[in-house]
Amino acid sequence: MSLLIVGSVAYDGIETPFGEVERILGGSATYISLTSSYLTNQVNLVGVVGKDFSDEDIELFKSRGINLDGLQRDDSGNTFFWKGKYHYDLNNRDTLDTQLNVFERFDPVIPENYKNARYIALGNIEPSLQEKVLDQVENPRFVVMDTMNFWIDRAPEALKKTLKRVHLLVINDSEARELAQEPNLMKAAEKVMAMGPEALIIKKGEHGALLFTENEIFSAPAYPVIDIFDPTGAGDSFMGGLLGWLAYTDDISPQNLRRSVIIGSVMASFCVEEFGPGRLKNLTEKEIYDRYREFRNLSEIPEIS
Amino acid sequence: MSLLIVGSVAYDGIETPFGEVERILGGSATYISLTSSYLTNQVNLVGVVGKDFSDEDIELFKSRGINLDGLQRDDSGNTFFWKGKYHYDLNNRDTLDTQLNVFERFDPVIPENYKNARYIALGNIEPSLQEKVLDQVENPRFVVMDTMNFWIDRAPEALKKTLKRVHLLVINDSEARELAQEPNLMKAAEKVMAMGPEALIIKKGEHGALLFTENEIFSAPAYPVIDIFDPTGAGDSFMGGLLGWLAYTDDISPQNLRRSVIIGSVMASFCVEEFGPGRLKNLTEKEIYDRYREFRNLSEIPEIS
Repeated sequence: MSLLIVGSVAYDGIETPFGEVERILGGSATYISLTSSYLTNQVNLVGVVGKDFSDEDIELFKSRGINLDGLQRDDSGNTFFWKGKYHYDLNNRDTLDTQLNVFERFDPVIPENYKNARYIALGNIEPSLQEKVLDQVENPRFVVMDTMNFWIDRAPEALKKTLKRVHLLVINDSEARELAQEPNLMKAAEKVMAMGPEALIIKKGEHGALLFTENEIFSAPAYPVIDIFDPTGAGDSFMGGLLGWLAYTDDISPQNLRRSVIIGSVMASFCVEEFGPGRLKNLTEKEIYDRYREFRNLSEIPEIS
Repeated sequence: MSLLIVGSVAYDGIETPFGEVERILGGSATYISLTSSYLTNQVNLVGVVGKDFSDEDIELFKSRGINLDGLQRDDSGNTFFWKGKYHYDLNNRDTLDTQLNVFERFDPVIPENYKNARYIALGNIEPSLQEKVLDQVENPRFVVMDTMNFWIDRAPEALKKTLKRVHLLVINDSEARELAQEPNLMKAAEKVMAMGPEALIIKKGEHGALLFTENEIFSAPAYPVIDIFDPTGAGDSFMGGLLGWLAYTDDISPQNLRRSVIIGSVMASFCVEEFGPGRLKNLTEKEIYDRYREFRNLSEIPEIS
């Protein structure tokens, strides 16, 4: 099934305790589309880049079979640039520089040939723009939305409006607590689901993720990565793996949502192994499914006879 | 197989956002022995109580079939008393009062009929006393040790000495980081295992627990308890369920250690449902195994065909 991805395409400057890159391809739509491209060959990207966007990066998307009909090029400025520095524990980062550039005027226009997409990834952009995307598509089967504290603070009403139209919200634990105004994570999940989405994923970083559906909870483990090289893009890679799997299987049952959470976790675990999207350029099917089996083994509880 | 439990027997005063009790039975040996008594009928307790210890509480232990030959009564003072207050998030507590009383002079003497115990629980007491217990027993098959930041700070050398003689160390994540002097939890686990124990469990509170054995890692989920009434004793209940299961099955394979972690988690999840050990007085086998199955369902990753 076809997959529509809307989000940022960017250049990132990244400092981690293990090294530094001045400028590397980044952005939510980049990570979501690269990772989902390993699972389905109908990936359609919507985003905007500036006059500095390189042919080499265009070629990277193309080499992964990603449709760029919806990638606008705005020659009036440069591509969105973000620079951040991760600390030793890698859970915290400081933003050193943000240049919105052409992304400031981003107006997501969905090409005609994307409008019948069945699966939709709304990357972390302004909630009103996320809703604008939904206004343009025909009859999606499953809409997944990401957001962040920034929008929960600045645009709570627009966010809650969009939330009523999505099937699955993917946020981290602090965002869930803030959105629900509730410190207990289980109660926060209940409150967030009452806002609209029929499923909710709460990412807990090194502690894995929780999937809430109508009648059950699934607790997914985190992959025990000893050497996280660069956490940039891990959350978007999670979303890309998840949605790629759903689009590929066209099955949104709670059982298959569990699988999608693990495929997402697999992609996130690969993402952090190299700077930027480096590791996501050359994955093999065997690597992906081998790691899926590692996740199964990691959390397998033997029966009691 | 017989199980020897050494630790504190106490009275606790507890304040939580949900209520308050002035004085209720507590202590590590209490929680470990009550929970393990549901799994094996050979539970042997070593501890000390003072002149104020009630007949009713003695009867509680006896009603659960717990052998009290090793429970010393010291009429020169009162029983160890601890008073604490939990905050709204229940992850933090303030100690309001600590009266060591007769526990200050606790000298664990192992009765002759306990010395051939095959499974040993060293509750959270001074590391040199834990070692003294090991000096008195004959040939235990499996020794499990708990400790806390207090001993890591105050008696690191004694602790490391004892650690060389135990098979499994059970600590929480902050203790693991402190003991290893390493913020990355995976690296901390490696370092702690290099200190002696062949298995390590790191408890992560609301995020579950990790079991490290020679060649594998097991990630156990936390039970999604919406209403934690009183967290007192949860860690000791975990240890009691775990060791009770191992003593019952007499199987210390990695697969069965996984089961023991879940039985421990089951007991901890019951413990927090009422004040003190209230919920641990009247569990049924059906409740225990039903909750075990809930844990399995909670973290089951479906196969990919």
